[in-house]
Amino acid sequence: MGPPFRGKTKMAPGRIRLGMIGGGQGAFIGGVHRIAARMDDRFTLVAGVLSSDPDRGRRSATDLGLAPDRAYGSVDEMVAGERGRPDGAEVVAVVTPNHLHFEAAKACLEAGLHVICDKPVTATLEDAETLARVVATSGKLFILTHNYTGYPMIRQARAMVAAGELGDLRVVQAEYAQDWLTTPLEQQGIKGAEWRTDPQRSGAGGSIGDIGTHAYNLAAFVTGREPTSLLADLATFGQGRRLDDNASILLRYADGAKGMVWASQVAVGNENHLTLRIYGSKSGLEWNQEDPNRLWFTRHGEPKQLMTRNGAGAWPEAVRSSRIPAGHPEGYLEGFANIYTEAAKAIEAARQGAVDATALYPTVGDGVRGMRFIEACVTSNAAGGQWTVISNP
Amino acid sequence: MGPPFRGKTKMAPGRIRLGMIGGGQGAFIGGVHRIAARMDDRFTLVAGVLSSDPDRGRRSATDLGLAPDRAYGSVDEMVAGERGRPDGAEVVAVVTPNHLHFEAAKACLEAGLHVICDKPVTATLEDAETLARVVATSGKLFILTHNYTGYPMIRQARAMVAAGELGDLRVVQAEYAQDWLTTPLEQQGIKGAEWRTDPQRSGAGGSIGDIGTHAYNLAAFVTGREPTSLLADLATFGQGRRLDDNASILLRYADGAKGMVWASQVAVGNENHLTLRIYGSKSGLEWNQEDPNRLWFTRHGEPKQLMTRNGAGAWPEAVRSSRIPAGHPEGYLEGFANIYTEAAKAIEAARQGAVDATALYPTVGDGVRGMRFIEACVTSNAAGGQWTVISNP
Amino acid sequence: MGPPFRGKTKMAPGRIRLGMIGGGQGAFIGGVHRIAARMDDRFTLVAGVLSSDPDRGRRSATDLGLAPDRAYGSVDEMVAGERGRPDGAEVVAVVTPNHLHFEAAKACLEAGLHVICDKPVTATLEDAETLARVVATSGKLFILTHNYTGYPMIRQARAMVAAGELGDLRVVQAEYAQDWLTTPLEQQGIKGAEWRTDPQRSGAGGSIGDIGTHAYNLAAFVTGREPTSLLADLATFGQGRRLDDNASILLRYADGAKGMVWASQVAVGNENHLTLRIYGSKSGLEWNQEDPNRLWFTRHGEPKQLMTRNGAGAWPEAVRSSRIPAGHPEGYLEGFANIYTEAAKAIEAARQGAVDATALYPTVGDGVRGMRFIEACVTSNAAGGQWTVISNP
Amino acid sequence: MGPPFRGKTKMAPGRIRLGMIGGGQGAFIGGVHRIAARMDDRFTLVAGVLSSDPDRGRRSATDLGLAPDRAYGSVDEMVAGERGRPDGAEVVAVVTPNHLHFEAAKACLEAGLHVICDKPVTATLEDAETLARVVATSGKLFILTHNYTGYPMIRQARAMVAAGELGDLRVVQAEYAQDWLTTPLEQQGIKGAEWRTDPQRSGAGGSIGDIGTHAYNLAAFVTGREPTSLLADLATFGQGRRLDDNASILLRYADGAKGMVWASQVAVGNENHLTLRIYGSKSGLEWNQEDPNRLWFTRHGEPKQLMTRNGAGAWPEAVRSSRIPAGHPEGYLEGFANIYTEAAKAIEAARQGAVDATALYPTVGDGVRGMRFIEACVTSNAAGGQWTVISNP
Repeated sequence: MGPPFRGKTKMAPGRIRLGMIGGGQGAFIGGVHRIAARMDDRFTLVAGVLSSDPDRGRRSATDLGLAPDRAYGSVDEMVAGERGRPDGAEVVAVVTPNHLHFEAAKACLEAGLHVICDKPVTATLEDAETLARVVATSGKLFILTHNYTGYPMIRQARAMVAAGELGDLRVVQAEYAQDWLTTPLEQQGIKGAEWRTDPQRSGAGGSIGDIGTHAYNLAAFVTGREPTSLLADLATFGQGRRLDDNASILLRYADGAKGMVWASQVAVGNENHLTLRIYGSKSGLEWNQEDPNRLWFTRHGEPKQLMTRNGAGAWPEAVRSSRIPAGHPEGYLEGFANIYTEAAKAIEAARQGAVDATALYPTVGDGVRGMRFIEACVTSNAAGGQWTVISNP
Repeated sequence: MGPPFRGKTKMAPGRIRLGMIGGGQGAFIGGVHRIAARMDDRFTLVAGVLSSDPDRGRRSATDLGLAPDRAYGSVDEMVAGERGRPDGAEVVAVVTPNHLHFEAAKACLEAGLHVICDKPVTATLEDAETLARVVATSGKLFILTHNYTGYPMIRQARAMVAAGELGDLRVVQAEYAQDWLTTPLEQQGIKGAEWRTDPQRSGAGGSIGDIGTHAYNLAAFVTGREPTSLLADLATFGQGRRLDDNASILLRYADGAKGMVWASQVAVGNENHLTLRIYGSKSGLEWNQEDPNRLWFTRHGEPKQLMTRNGAGAWPEAVRSSRIPAGHPEGYLEGFANIYTEAAKAIEAARQGAVDATALYPTVGDGVRGMRFIEACVTSNAAGGQWTVISNP
Repeated sequence: MGPPFRGKTKMAPGRIRLGMIGGGQGAFIGGVHRIAARMDDRFTLVAGVLSSDPDRGRRSATDLGLAPDRAYGSVDEMVAGERGRPDGAEVVAVVTPNHLHFEAAKACLEAGLHVICDKPVTATLEDAETLARVVATSGKLFILTHNYTGYPMIRQARAMVAAGELGDLRVVQAEYAQDWLTTPLEQQGIKGAEWRTDPQRSGAGGSIGDIGTHAYNLAAFVTGREPTSLLADLATFGQGRRLDDNASILLRYADGAKGMVWASQVAVGNENHLTLRIYGSKSGLEWNQEDPNRLWFTRHGEPKQLMTRNGAGAWPEAVRSSRIPAGHPEGYLEGFANIYTEAAKAIEAARQGAVDATALYPTVGDGVRGMRFIEACVTSNAAGGQWTVISNP
Repeated sequence: MGPPFRGKTKMAPGRIRLGMIGGGQGAFIGGVHRIAARMDDRFTLVAGVLSSDPDRGRRSATDLGLAPDRAYGSVDEMVAGERGRPDGAEVVAVVTPNHLHFEAAKACLEAGLHVICDKPVTATLEDAETLARVVATSGKLFILTHNYTGYPMIRQARAMVAAGELGDLRVVQAEYAQDWLTTPLEQQGIKGAEWRTDPQRSGAGGSIGDIGTHAYNLAAFVTGREPTSLLADLATFGQGRRLDDNASILLRYADGAKGMVWASQVAVGNENHLTLRIYGSKSGLEWNQEDPNRLWFTRHGEPKQLMTRNGAGAWPEAVRSSRIPAGHPEGYLEGFANIYTEAAKAIEAARQGAVDATALYPTVGDGVRGMRFIEACVTSNAAGGQWTVISNP
């Protein structure tokens, strides 16, 4: 099997009762959330509004082994139905199309349920800010699945920056390049392409919203800071497309650090090329989502070091987020599951009236900041590509 | 999230009732089996003999949410207890230390239970051959978790060889190099090192048994054939160590093809460097377990191609074993889960008296062939490094 | 030795008589030029003004085997001395510090000598434009050693773009990252750091001039077009430094294509990370100077292909610029030598009053365009980071 | 240009007068030798027997700018002609087909000339041993161009082993894989394939002689030791081919270390995949000829380090063999030139009656050891693949 393992086999000290909104048959991201919830055995799916189409919702519930009376037809029904039960859902995963996140999440929070929400948090900044207030008022947990922050070596990178290993932050280079929208798939009946390129359903951002926010969020997560202004040059290459599919973005930080973000869905030859490179006055860090178990670290004047998840050079922050030994790759689902497992711990703490201070999962605040990023990009671009303040209060 | 997904979100058409022998608190591989069983939601853990230590067994059962009356103290108790229940276990995962596999698996099979067994199948070839007869007599399924065969691109490689893409097989280069036994860890109280270097518990093979069999099995899986003879030069570098920790092995195939296998647990800088390179008269294939979502394919005279899981160049065999889009890495646990999910399908078919003809999971036959490989290596080495026939009938 | 070789062993049909200005003892780039000139045996060094310090000039001449009477003390002396000789220099390599290029090159051209000039062509745009006029009037050849254009796979990339393999150009990503100016070396007596950070000697550009121009030039060489406007955000991280050491630049092309250029001399862990990625409506190309014998090419929807210098997938443009078989790496000096060898062919043609239409070496026009790039960057940055038209007439 | 350079620009303190046997028009390796001789400007080609075909010899001499009276028709003529001249050749490069090396080298040595000889040294072991005696008697220098030993990072690897960085040597893995003989090119009029597969011209070894010796020599150069016995399993896959094109070889060293050598000319997808991996009790080293500027070094329990030529982590042995800064790749020709430049220094020392104690170039002894390796492989294979003592006295 392998070398002595330095992490811990996770065992479940008590299962969290999970409801789900969206994620019926054919919905990709719902399946990912369920795998992530199952990975460490912390959750049991107990209820759902799996589809806006009642038939599909019922079939999906059967597939998933839900009790028929807990396969609801609407969010309101679920909230009402679960509230009365001693074994009612405690937390709800919102995995609908993006423009429906807001209403679903708000209803759950107001009903006293924790929420795990797929990104982007809402379709507009205004909704995101409203939702943030709802979260604050509710006292409930809100976990945003900016899942790339769950990768162990990303956690290590964050810890290294926080510990001063890089010195003063100087340069941030973040990229998220794909190629699947090289041709106008949205005109060929591909659903995922349709809603992602439809301003009604995706908001004002195309590639900047779908993937640019991931790159931006990841940079913020690792560096521990937000830029103060940005400049965006958006482009649309897909014929007849209504939203951007390529974005060139510059960032400025309060302390003089500089950044570049490139998001593209037309970069032929890139699948999910999400990379982060961070350079400070002492050291540099480089990471690539397609090879996520490795982190390249260079102290100025020394040879580049290859740090591996659970291997030599791994920090506790990475080990804690790992399941298996170094050299046995963990991937996207494990990173996603780390968000869910942290959510579970936080919910368990909340049951006791406590707060899990170690949690690193993204929250509604990250969601708001992501929407401000999108808004600033759109504003900057509309002005012909001008520097635009990012309105983080 | 990403590009249009070409695989399928797996949903569970009915859960398999799983028992487990071994895998209590602190046992690494048991946890891996449980994650693999959960990944696609095909199994429910219903019973277990989780530890030879009753206290630890009970604590482990509580951790895992087992009903107390189904946390058994011995294999016999479990067999007896589950037999009478309408909701009794259908299949048992055997994840004990290696030398205990035989008795546990035999008892389960004889009680009419399917078995999923960690590798190596038994501690001796004799036991393996006996077990193969027991499997045949029982009419039950026996799944051996040679998990690396579950990687999607390995399935694609196998399909490509079978389809004649490589032409006539010429050269097979398989390696499995680690470095964690560079120093005599077994003398420092590291349990995993202790039993792996103890002939009583691991049988006659050290690195050849622990990892060499993986490389050998993987080559056989992909090429679809076994060599007829081999020559092994075994070495022990760890001071005071009682089994080999480095093995240099040559293979000869019936049709003139040649192979080399290198297994090492003292190759400093290697974590789980399991690689397979196969060359035929028309093309070559190269794969590395530490970067498992990629398969390099070269037709003679053409540029090397990078085939990716679920990406351009993916064959149906790889797509079928995938969960998420290209560029979002799947890893070790997903490959392991593919074995479990295939086991589930085969068990479901067996419930109907049918056979799942598409199953690719390793069986007791692979276990026997692995033991013959170990035996041939030891025999060859004991003779000073002589060519030795591999006794595959 | 290796596989059958598809290029040609170059043999010299007649040697070009070369003079050199600069490049005395301790001058790095002069040595590179001499190796490049020797590589294919097309040149003989016959004269030089090797140093502004007469003693060092003499010692250098002795080292290089120059006849004592052809080791001159000034450009004027050399021009005068060589003019009268039947075996006088035909072409002069100008390898002085940058701010001295202009006068030296002008004097040589006006004396009827061809010029090979290190980049940047001059210290100011005005000088560059003047020099371009002098070149035009002189009827002499002017070769600018933007040496990265000499790499065989860069020539292939250019040919592929020109042949329409990429379809319509969409996105250009060019990077040149180093880390050697992470600390203020210019305050520690390092000469190369001193003049590169001194506006008097380097002009208005720091990293943009020293390396940004290389990235910009390479993108123009491969795509066959210049952007129409740019926006630059320059930064200086080295304490007390007087020129930029990090530059974030956006490009816009007339046909709607977009580009990003990142130049940095403070990106810890980067040696000479010069990369070019180009995406079109049909395909993508990716290249990295630190691994220059490989070119990654992806047709949309097909697996990524690894094209290698002189290997399968090599185009005639790459083969023609190669000396040795695929798999035996050529490097920086060979790419540099390709510029020299093309210069030799062009000079031989000029001897016959002909023009070598196949030459791809950069010219004074590239030099002017590089200076316009620097000027536009500085202008944009001075305006707070505004879009600025690049004044290409 | 780049970062401060830590090596030295080489300048020529006096040119060595070089003759050449072989290497006329169309002869690949002769051109490589000439580039290597020119690279650091240490040699002047003054005489040659460039072809066995007098016409081709003359044309080649004209191409190369040789004086007509020094373009000789035979080795004897050259020896006689050069002997009388004050400016006569001091050293002769023998770059004929392999089976002609012996007579040419012997004649030169006996005439008091130093010899630089392409590998393999001779066609038979007997000839090699004879030649070694001739060298000893002559008192002349004999440089064998096992050129891969000239790569800077290989010199560093050797120095690191010698300094004890690896601890006790345990495992040596050397590979040289190509694919150009996948099909029977020798039957299609490809000259390089014809003589390499012809026992009359290449001796008893096919792939073992052509490339296996390189892998073997490189391992010996870096580890500083020879194995005491080997076992070889040779194969011929090319239809109708008369020599081996794939070799699987095991090595045993006196101190218990183990090795594997794989040589193949039918491994589709490999160009010049020459790799060396060495593992000791403390550390491991990994190097690949196709990426020669990098050396991977891992101390047990620490992260893998990427050491680069002239970069951080470079040892003096690598810096000394470098011309340009880190991140600007040097390649095959530069490594080859390092052998020539060392030969020049040794010849200069010999002019003074001194010995250059720093020289690392391979000698006739390496040639003899290479022939013993081939002989042992052939003997082992002929015996069905038996362990065979390597007859190093």
